Amino acid sequence: MNQNHQFKLTSRPVGAVKRSDFSYTQEPVRDPADGEVVIKNLYISLDPAMRGWMNESKNSYIPPVAIGEVMRALAVGRVVASKNPQFTVGDHVGGMLGMQEYAYSNGQGLNKVDPRMAPLPVFLGTLGMPGLTAYFGLLDVGKPKEGETVVVSGAAGAVGAVVGQIAKIKGCRVIGIAGGAEKCRYLVEELGFDAAIDYKKEDVKAALHQHCPQGIDVYFDNVGGEILDAVLTRLARNARIVICGAISQYNNTTAVQGPANYLSLIVARASMQGIMVADYYPRAMEALSAMGGWLASGKLKSREDIVDGLETFPDTFLKLFSGENNGKLVLKVAEA
Amino acid sequence: MNQNHQFKLTSRPVGAVKRSDFSYTQEPVRDPADGEVVIKNLYISLDPAMRGWMNESKNSYIPPVAIGEVMRALAVGRVVASKNPQFTVGDHVGGMLGMQEYAYSNGQGLNKVDPRMAPLPVFLGTLGMPGLTAYFGLLDVGKPKEGETVVVSGAAGAVGAVVGQIAKIKGCRVIGIAGGAEKCRYLVEELGFDAAIDYKKEDVKAALHQHCPQGIDVYFDNVGGEILDAVLTRLARNARIVICGAISQYNNTTAVQGPANYLSLIVARASMQGIMVADYYPRAMEALSAMGGWLASGKLKSREDIVDGLETFPDTFLKLFSGENNGKLVLKVAEA
Repeated sequence: MNQNHQFKLTSRPVGAVKRSDFSYTQEPVRDPADGEVVIKNLYISLDPAMRGWMNESKNSYIPPVAIGEVMRALAVGRVVASKNPQFTVGDHVGGMLGMQEYAYSNGQGLNKVDPRMAPLPVFLGTLGMPGLTAYFGLLDVGKPKEGETVVVSGAAGAVGAVVGQIAKIKGCRVIGIAGGAEKCRYLVEELGFDAAIDYKKEDVKAALHQHCPQGIDVYFDNVGGEILDAVLTRLARNARIVICGAISQYNNTTAVQGPANYLSLIVARASMQGIMVADYYPRAMEALSAMGGWLASGKLKSREDIVDGLETFPDTFLKLFSGENNGKLVLKVAEA
Repeated sequence: MNQNHQFKLTSRPVGAVKRSDFSYTQEPVRDPADGEVVIKNLYISLDPAMRGWMNESKNSYIPPVAIGEVMRALAVGRVVASKNPQFTVGDHVGGMLGMQEYAYSNGQGLNKVDPRMAPLPVFLGTLGMPGLTAYFGLLDVGKPKEGETVVVSGAAGAVGAVVGQIAKIKGCRVIGIAGGAEKCRYLVEELGFDAAIDYKKEDVKAALHQHCPQGIDVYFDNVGGEILDAVLTRLARNARIVICGAISQYNNTTAVQGPANYLSLIVARASMQGIMVADYYPRAMEALSAMGGWLASGKLKSREDIVDGLETFPDTFLKLFSGENNGKLVLKVAEA
């Protein structure tokens, strides 16, 4: 009988996640109940939002992961047993399948994915939640117009890289903010960004001044903190700031650093708006067909950073916060 | 020959304004040059924005007042000499006339006001810049819908009182935040607000929880700081925050306190947008005719706090920051 290894949350992390915040357990894989499918996870997504799910928060968009519960995570896998007429053994599916080797599902929230269309990990990145976040956050909230200047932080990450490339496709001038020379080279030379700013080495405010002489029309923020504050000093008139996340703040043990320069919103007649990707799931096909086309034509590139082994979570998860990952961070937990 | 007493900025204030940041001087009133009018100031407006004009800021919407220059201020007065065919001696006019007894103007930015329509100080408040700010900020940016919950801070001030009353006219539930029992009584009993929160005595977060059980749909912010952060914890889905000002922060000698809870914008899918009243001056007639009608019918009440004597500036100015003023703060500098 197959064993299902699982990471369960055993304590709420304070600051950065530690291995001791989880238990690594195993239990036998059971047969599906009526209406259920059993999925063998192949790739599990590591997303910054998971850090928030570990907190006991009263004011969140999703309930926290309960203590003792398998850690919540998006994944793609293969159906290995089915008592649900909508799914057949061998189907590839994606959904909130958890930090474990096998998952059970009644089919709700489970989507079939086609591995002939793209490699499976891409369905956790560019053709998954991060890609939809980038697409709708940029186009629906940021509303970039041709010729405008778009700045994106976390630009080499799963969301940021897509944001910047779509902005280029839409005819914008694009500046990415990322950590390290190699990521900056990647953004400019491989993804076609107009410029990249290495926040680990450069003075971000001065670099924005240099690269955005007409100011910033759209800022897509994945990081918060000092970079958000630097951008606020360079807004163009009627700028739109898309607040997608604040990875610089997720491991804080003190209060979140609010943007001290927010009064620039008055001077620039600018707006700052939050985006929640789940609101756009009903329109997912619109984004996926556009992005699928761009991927096929080579206009959009997708990069995944695939780490072997379920058991490396949560150490691998920390790469998101140090910025060590190159592209969408994914755990490979079984051979396809 | 008449003397013109003037307050000139002599040093950039650090923290709260001090009398020693200004010189109080006099010079003879001269005749108008060709195309000019000479105006005798009757009422001078004291506005929170003036504090910002005193700073050496590179990133502002208007150049700072230069050292040695007469302090910039809105005022209404009477034309006492004219070599401009558009203005006649005896006309009442409003504009950026400065902290002085007499002003010269070539007519640009000078508006005739009709003292039969409303008492002159009202043209510095409800029918002036603060009223336009309230009208367009609330209706164009806040976009309140009937039945929604609107919260306004600085609610007993020149802008806030108009915001709340217009929101009531539009069928909203309105909660004002103000300092002191008397202001709160005024908001509820005289202006018809549904509730008022005394931030000097109450726990604002708890009071918002009590008075806004369905969350806050529109927040019009005049104060920033901790009150903005408290509101961010109670946003309804798709809430709109209008950033008009941050009087709690204008005298800071340290950095502005950014809203630590700004990530609630994601959870609530909310937006935060700055408003600059000057953008709406071309549409001023729309607001003034609506508000003139509401004033005439008694739906909109206007209150001015009139202090006698030009020489009391800048002490009187400090009332804005302590919250001692009751209604639009105006200096009376001459008999009409």
